[in-house]
Amino acid sequence: MINTICWKDDIVRMIDQTVLPEREVYIECTDYKQVADSIRTMVIRGAPAIGVAAAMGIALGAMASKADNKQVFLQDLDEVYRVIGETRPTAVNLFWAIDQMKGIVRKHNSLPISQLKDKLKQRALEIREQDISINKNIGQHGQQFIKDGDCILTHCNAGALATAGYGTALGVIRAAHDAGKRLSVLADETRPFMQGARLTAWELMHDHIPVTLITDNMAGYFMQQGKVNLVVVGADRIAGNGDVANKIGTYSVAVLADKHNIPFYVAAPISTLDLSLSSGEEIPIEQRAADEVTHVWGKSIAPVGVKVAHPAFDVTPARYVTGIITERGVAGPAYVDSLKALACGDND
Amino acid sequence: MINTICWKDDIVRMIDQTVLPEREVYIECTDYKQVADSIRTMVIRGAPAIGVAAAMGIALGAMASKADNKQVFLQDLDEVYRVIGETRPTAVNLFWAIDQMKGIVRKHNSLPISQLKDKLKQRALEIREQDISINKNIGQHGQQFIKDGDCILTHCNAGALATAGYGTALGVIRAAHDAGKRLSVLADETRPFMQGARLTAWELMHDHIPVTLITDNMAGYFMQQGKVNLVVVGADRIAGNGDVANKIGTYSVAVLADKHNIPFYVAAPISTLDLSLSSGEEIPIEQRAADEVTHVWGKSIAPVGVKVAHPAFDVTPARYVTGIITERGVAGPAYVDSLKALACGDND
Repeated sequence: MINTICWKDDIVRMIDQTVLPEREVYIECTDYKQVADSIRTMVIRGAPAIGVAAAMGIALGAMASKADNKQVFLQDLDEVYRVIGETRPTAVNLFWAIDQMKGIVRKHNSLPISQLKDKLKQRALEIREQDISINKNIGQHGQQFIKDGDCILTHCNAGALATAGYGTALGVIRAAHDAGKRLSVLADETRPFMQGARLTAWELMHDHIPVTLITDNMAGYFMQQGKVNLVVVGADRIAGNGDVANKIGTYSVAVLADKHNIPFYVAAPISTLDLSLSSGEEIPIEQRAADEVTHVWGKSIAPVGVKVAHPAFDVTPARYVTGIITERGVAGPAYVDSLKALACGDND
Repeated sequence: MINTICWKDDIVRMIDQTVLPEREVYIECTDYKQVADSIRTMVIRGAPAIGVAAAMGIALGAMASKADNKQVFLQDLDEVYRVIGETRPTAVNLFWAIDQMKGIVRKHNSLPISQLKDKLKQRALEIREQDISINKNIGQHGQQFIKDGDCILTHCNAGALATAGYGTALGVIRAAHDAGKRLSVLADETRPFMQGARLTAWELMHDHIPVTLITDNMAGYFMQQGKVNLVVVGADRIAGNGDVANKIGTYSVAVLADKHNIPFYVAAPISTLDLSLSSGEEIPIEQRAADEVTHVWGKSIAPVGVKVAHPAFDVTPARYVTGIITERGVAGPAYVDSLKALACGDND
């Protein structure tokens, strides 16, 4: 079992996703700034995992506060929220997790500081636990779309490594595999960070699910050859109208899937919905550093000084999305209503 | 000026495209087997450049023959044709060059062996010279499609490094630039071999043409943002109906361009036409080794033992091609007639 992130003896321990699969190294964060750095540098990545890390980081920050009155404690927390909140702009799960922790502070406003710290830690651990069961539910709701013998294309890594465990898009694939369906996966390598080559391929091989690695620019070729039955990806933020921000390249895959009449599913927890946004155009797109494009494992693959663009995400319009698979069921077009209905369901 | 391939003192000298842009190293081939190896290992690549290398390789092979009678000489040549012909299956320019050399042998059948060797060498040098002027004509015919201020997206490298000089797709861009049009280029990095990152970016920076490097999976994003005015790519083989085989990923770019109503041009010499094929489905697609996908500069980026697919080319159906720019003019739909008309024009 892959242990993406856990809490042990008041230390946040994460597998370092920047060096997988070559090395299996664990990073131990003893303060919230280390957690923020780990999110920023993509030691941990994937929207749900970022949410868990953010919550745990806030718990660490709260516990480290030396404040002896509530006002100073709340000021300390504000600084923690700020630092954690400035790590990565696109995945809404980060802000969702911050809101969850703020809610705990509001709810237990009357408790003494030490007990409030315990409540924050407790909520962070709960968020991690809940994420795993959420993913298993996503898997159950999604696996109905996979038929025996299907080949499923996925982009980036929306697996156990992108979550507290099991995965969203890979959760759907795992659930179908666990249900005894024979399937195979085409994994886009997902430049520049190579989440597909490094993480998705590694995870699926670990679970003995047949996977073939391709470069991103081969996806169209295999669709044209009739080799892809279904696409399933994760999401970093889903607007109220069903527009989906996800790893750069997802939009191209969606357009290609549409052109070839291949169903295109998005698998994500309810915490990835951002119903405050009426369309994907409002989702901030993170621009990352040029050297992630020009260098692979520290080795330059481009001329020195070349100009580079590096949007880390793109937005897939809802019209290309066949369905959004959540832990509470599957939303289909029209998303404004279907997403609202799911979001207003029972809160877990 | 980039000197991709030249003939000097009966040695074929090529810039080693596997180590650019980090190092500018020249490989000197003294026999045809070295030329064949250089084509196979992509020391030299790009359909027109492969054609030139094949012709020069055959000339080297002919000159090295120790045959003292014509029959043995022709048998030696058959072996040279076979070895050169088995290097790479998709680019038709390789086979076109072999046919050109066979034509010389037929035409000068009555000459003594030593003079026949001279004729073969002379034809190989001519093919190189002609390629440069062909590219300049392609540039002139193509630059009309580029407007002042345009941003042009290209995939792979169809530049000076893919030809004897000047380039096909990049020839069109160079001609527009030379005509004083302000333009900028988005260069797909073109995994797995990184021809865009390593070669196109390097060439354009060398000529002070503004270029921005992107990963292949960003092309759709920039089209969606309205940042791409035109796409121009090269070709490895064009069937009689206008279907175009080119570097893997070209098909995806073409579908995306179509979806965004962006003109998609192919620039290639007449020698890239294969009117013997009625459609692109008949074009053989080279499958290359897995380690070109799993390793970057010798460093592994994927789990050991992962299954990989590596089609090196794909076929873009003619319906996505706005025009095919050749040295004799521009073919537009319907290609069956327009390509035939160009192919039957004056032979140079």
